Amino acid sequence: MYRDRIRLSSLHSKVMSAADAAGLIEDGMTVGMSGFTRAGEAKAVPHALAERAKQSPLKISLMTGASLGNDLDKQLTEAGVLARRMPFQVDSTLRKAINEGKVMFIDQHLSETVEQLRNQQLKLPDIAVIEAVAITEQGHIVPTTSVGNSASFAIFAKQVIVEINLAHNANLEGLHDIYIPTYRPTRTPIPLVKVDDRIGSTAIPIDPAKIVGIVITDQPDSPSTVLAPDEETRGIANHLINFLKQEVDAGRMTNTLGPLQAGIGNIANAVMCGLIDSPFQDLTMYSEVLQDSTFDLIDAGKLSFASGSSITLSTRRNADVFGNLERYKDKLVLRPQEISNHPEVVRRLGIIGINTALEFDLYGNVNSTHVCGTRMMNGIGGSGDFARNAHLAIFVTKSIAKGGAISSVVPMVSHVDHTEHDVDILVTEQGLADLRGLAPRERARVIIDNCVHPDYREALNDYFNRACERGGHTPHILREALQWHENLEETGRMLAS
Amino acid sequence: MYRDRIRLSSLHSKVMSAADAAGLIEDGMTVGMSGFTRAGEAKAVPHALAERAKQSPLKISLMTGASLGNDLDKQLTEAGVLARRMPFQVDSTLRKAINEGKVMFIDQHLSETVEQLRNQQLKLPDIAVIEAVAITEQGHIVPTTSVGNSASFAIFAKQVIVEINLAHNANLEGLHDIYIPTYRPTRTPIPLVKVDDRIGSTAIPIDPAKIVGIVITDQPDSPSTVLAPDEETRGIANHLINFLKQEVDAGRMTNTLGPLQAGIGNIANAVMCGLIDSPFQDLTMYSEVLQDSTFDLIDAGKLSFASGSSITLSTRRNADVFGNLERYKDKLVLRPQEISNHPEVVRRLGIIGINTALEFDLYGNVNSTHVCGTRMMNGIGGSGDFARNAHLAIFVTKSIAKGGAISSVVPMVSHVDHTEHDVDILVTEQGLADLRGLAPRERARVIIDNCVHPDYREALNDYFNRACERGGHTPHILREALQWHENLEETGRMLAS
Repeated sequence: MYRDRIRLSSLHSKVMSAADAAGLIEDGMTVGMSGFTRAGEAKAVPHALAERAKQSPLKISLMTGASLGNDLDKQLTEAGVLARRMPFQVDSTLRKAINEGKVMFIDQHLSETVEQLRNQQLKLPDIAVIEAVAITEQGHIVPTTSVGNSASFAIFAKQVIVEINLAHNANLEGLHDIYIPTYRPTRTPIPLVKVDDRIGSTAIPIDPAKIVGIVITDQPDSPSTVLAPDEETRGIANHLINFLKQEVDAGRMTNTLGPLQAGIGNIANAVMCGLIDSPFQDLTMYSEVLQDSTFDLIDAGKLSFASGSSITLSTRRNADVFGNLERYKDKLVLRPQEISNHPEVVRRLGIIGINTALEFDLYGNVNSTHVCGTRMMNGIGGSGDFARNAHLAIFVTKSIAKGGAISSVVPMVSHVDHTEHDVDILVTEQGLADLRGLAPRERARVIIDNCVHPDYREALNDYFNRACERGGHTPHILREALQWHENLEETGRMLAS
Repeated sequence: MYRDRIRLSSLHSKVMSAADAAGLIEDGMTVGMSGFTRAGEAKAVPHALAERAKQSPLKISLMTGASLGNDLDKQLTEAGVLARRMPFQVDSTLRKAINEGKVMFIDQHLSETVEQLRNQQLKLPDIAVIEAVAITEQGHIVPTTSVGNSASFAIFAKQVIVEINLAHNANLEGLHDIYIPTYRPTRTPIPLVKVDDRIGSTAIPIDPAKIVGIVITDQPDSPSTVLAPDEETRGIANHLINFLKQEVDAGRMTNTLGPLQAGIGNIANAVMCGLIDSPFQDLTMYSEVLQDSTFDLIDAGKLSFASGSSITLSTRRNADVFGNLERYKDKLVLRPQEISNHPEVVRRLGIIGINTALEFDLYGNVNSTHVCGTRMMNGIGGSGDFARNAHLAIFVTKSIAKGGAISSVVPMVSHVDHTEHDVDILVTEQGLADLRGLAPRERARVIIDNCVHPDYREALNDYFNRACERGGHTPHILREALQWHENLEETGRMLAS
């Protein structure tokens, strides 16, 4: 049956076991694997590689699109396979190893990894492992539920292993749009001017002679773990939707808004769900990951087109969407993450970027990645690609965490991923701060008045007022600026209760 | 004589005194003025406005391209005219008022101001005051030594005042290339694919009916204050040029390098001067400001073309260049700062961006703006526009300041303008750190080994080693992370001597 999926018959002889394919990966190699937000990752070969490493240790540098599903980062970490890892991850076991300094993690803007490879500023992958629904008559690779960095990995690698995953509906073919920027110094504009433009090919064009192994699998993607909206995330959604209505009323947008980008996670998903009951019409998405809410919006007749780099769904939605893909196929495209996140395109289209902050400070600087300035959570992902060039750079978070032990609004963030220059709008369940055109002292006033949880408002006000007495464009009391984080590390709470 | 410069004769009747023109500016107005890196600013009207405000107080919001010369920001500040100021400044009197919270300063990426105006996210200028060498037969404005934001200010403003400055050589006409991006949602790619492409018009196209006043002036730009290279800045240049040679040897660039961008100031200028004796050939610039070194490189036959948004020269070079402009004119173009700094173009062209850091930290985060995290120096300028999307994002600084009381390399920067994600190369006179593809702990090792002044190396090593014992992807000891800055504020030195 899988032979239908390998349409270049000379490649039939390349079918092998996952263990044999994993055997092609040598100690010290740089390996590029498919996978983006736990969608479309190669599944059998990394698992076999981890198994092999238990017997015969080896280390690799692993690049992916973004996060892997099916506990693969966990397995590879536990087997000691990962010397280096980029550009993103979400696995708790790997996270621990990163924070212990055992795995060197390079946290990158997701649009930039393949640009750096193309310029030979990073070591090119020796071998690529790409999940596919099919190999075409030309020997080109049709990706599955994500494109991520797969196209460039396959193009750059000397050898390519393809995993044909029978669990994916074969009619995913046609969904992808593979466009690779031309090389400098003769690079031309990316010819994408509307979210639904198709500018490339539906399969990854490589010389089939590079395909050294094909592994047949039948294993689904991991389901999304996104939670249904709760009272706080619904509150955030309401504040944001009211703000967008005001933007329309002020004539700064039409009722179709701009193309929407939403980061992964519960809050961004809740915001997107909130749009179902909004007055906006003919919405579009130009985003990284398409989640349940994308399809809820399509079903509700609100969303007319969605461009992404991956589709990550809950178990409920998965069977429904992929079992009825024809219903959605003309409203979807999956692109390389270099293009879904490209600054040129983000700026041109005027995207409304909605991403989650771990914490933000009085002046609008955002920490997306580091707990108490030191411990990596997941990585910056695409948030910087979008926030820097968006029409509106919006960051959302609940105002408190851990039952109130932590305030998400702090005097000074303990790590900066997005500077004050790149942040337009901040939203918590308490309210929304519109920072556009404001000086730092004005931003602080708006943030304290609108976003801070009442339990922390007085303390933050007190800090700000005393800092202002000392002066400065961006007033701070350096001795106290990180005190809340120190308290948290020492007592488990930012402030004495 | 000035009548030759106003080629639309119906406008001759608009000639008036600077005081009368300043009288058109009303209390509470938003005013957009020409001027970028102390080049091409309107000179007479802001001066007259400051004089008027001494008698009859008024407040305005003032937007420019970047910094103004001829002490205009000083005069306007002293006269109490500035309520709000954006997006950049370099004046010590204004700086003091900003840091005292008396002037609200909005520090922006220089490519973004007019984008935010176009989207009505900032208040549009009521009136624009633009320096010109001429007004064309169509009533279009020919800028002088800078374009900056002048074109969009004139297009957006309801009223336009033109200062015809006879001190500027009339043959500046033809040097400019005015391109305005089309409006969303039908924006098309910026059709610039080579540094010497001309994609716009040579004058700013506006309806001449908007020109409400014309003031004739005869006052030169302020000369550049750039200093000749010294031992340290030459050292920085040497490290950087050796690195670029290695890049060529490694096949990552050709001997023409990529288009060069250099920030304002002594260090970047010294680096550019260092290229005169380098083995590189047929260099190009795609930068903001063209300084003395640009013309030194052209004269030396090293530089074949330079694109910028302004020309700022020393007294020596000024007469030479503008007195012999025909010698240079086919090698130069001046563009709106939105285009000189545009992320789309910067990424496409693969620019080598060289900008000055105030300080950087163990992990490669850069502070470009805030002394001890609070006191604004000048502003981020274009450094972020270039660093984020450059082929190489390079930051340069001397390793120590104030005779050694300050280390430019610190445990944690007190303010972040450029995050670890956006910084490739750091250079001091001590050496060069290549951070590409490195995890934070690896970056720290390379920075300590190469960039830190010997007087601070042991202390920084000690901090890093103790931080690593605590763990974390980006190890820090929060209680000590800003201690060097606290010491500086309290004792005038970062470390006890």
